[in-house]
Amino acid sequence: MKTRILGIDPGYAIVGCGVLEYDGRSFLTLDYGAVTTPAGAEFTARLSAIYDGVCELLKCYHPDAMAIEKLFFNTNQKTAIDVAQARGVILLAARQYGVPVYEYTPLQVKQSVVGYGRAVKQQVIDMTTRMLNLKKAPKPDDVADALAIAICHAHSACSQLGSLQQFSIHKL
Amino acid sequence: MKTRILGIDPGYAIVGCGVLEYDGRSFLTLDYGAVTTPAGAEFTARLSAIYDGVCELLKCYHPDAMAIEKLFFNTNQKTAIDVAQARGVILLAARQYGVPVYEYTPLQVKQSVVGYGRAVKQQVIDMTTRMLNLKKAPKPDDVADALAIAICHAHSACSQLGSLQQFSIHKL
Repeated sequence: MKTRILGIDPGYAIVGCGVLEYDGRSFLTLDYGAVTTPAGAEFTARLSAIYDGVCELLKCYHPDAMAIEKLFFNTNQKTAIDVAQARGVILLAARQYGVPVYEYTPLQVKQSVVGYGRAVKQQVIDMTTRMLNLKKAPKPDDVADALAIAICHAHSACSQLGSLQQFSIHKL
Repeated sequence: MKTRILGIDPGYAIVGCGVLEYDGRSFLTLDYGAVTTPAGAEFTARLSAIYDGVCELLKCYHPDAMAIEKLFFNTNQKTAIDVAQARGVILLAARQYGVPVYEYTPLQVKQSVVGYGRAVKQQVIDMTTRMLNLKKAPKPDDVADALAIAICHAHSACSQLGSLQQFSIHKL
């Protein structure tokens, strides 16, 4: 059984996106890229561009699931609030297209893709590139991150089916 | 010149909403209430209900402006992230209906409605009820807060027109 997954690395300047298909053994990479919004634009215009971009992907690829990074507070309050606001419109788009959303922590993504939770960013990017047989690492890093999140969900969903669940799936 | 304002107190369980008209001297209260979402529902369903509820108000009342409370981090990370995600879909709705959004801090709202920034919550509710000639204080408090935010924008926008700007307006 094939599962089609839209991975999302949420943000308000760059939203990394990647669409994969997984049959339980190998991956097929359908598309990847980023929705980017200009720094000078009104914030509501940026939200609107993000929503439209994600809707476009949902409409085009009809994924079975959206996998998205779980948010944590960082030192910059303003940034965290704005990322969360952007994440809200991404979740809304998924809901409107009837696509279930699953969230994963960076630790879960590292464990799933590299094999251990303390992997550095570059290891995740390198392993993602290799697993998907891409000629070079997707740029910007947010795109590679989105693909890594999709891989994480693929592993997680398939291991769940096979009763070998590596970690609990947090469905929103 | 009349200005029609949709005031919003953002949240994910309760979104306070109030629609006012202000002619520079007096207020006309057109509508107020809350969009509420059940605690047990999927979070994406709650976001969708909030978006639909706010869209309904925008479609029905065609406000000239949306006034919304500025978010700050509080002690509960999870709550703050979820409120920000809900606020994102509210801002998206405003953008889609071509309504400009203005944000105000609780301090600005207190200064504008009660006259000083250290007013307690009940004073803001009492003064809002009196200024709008309501028979009793709107419930839940989130609704009164939304009306107070709308009053704050009315004062702010009108004083700006008259070059008596009390505090800077932060347009998103």
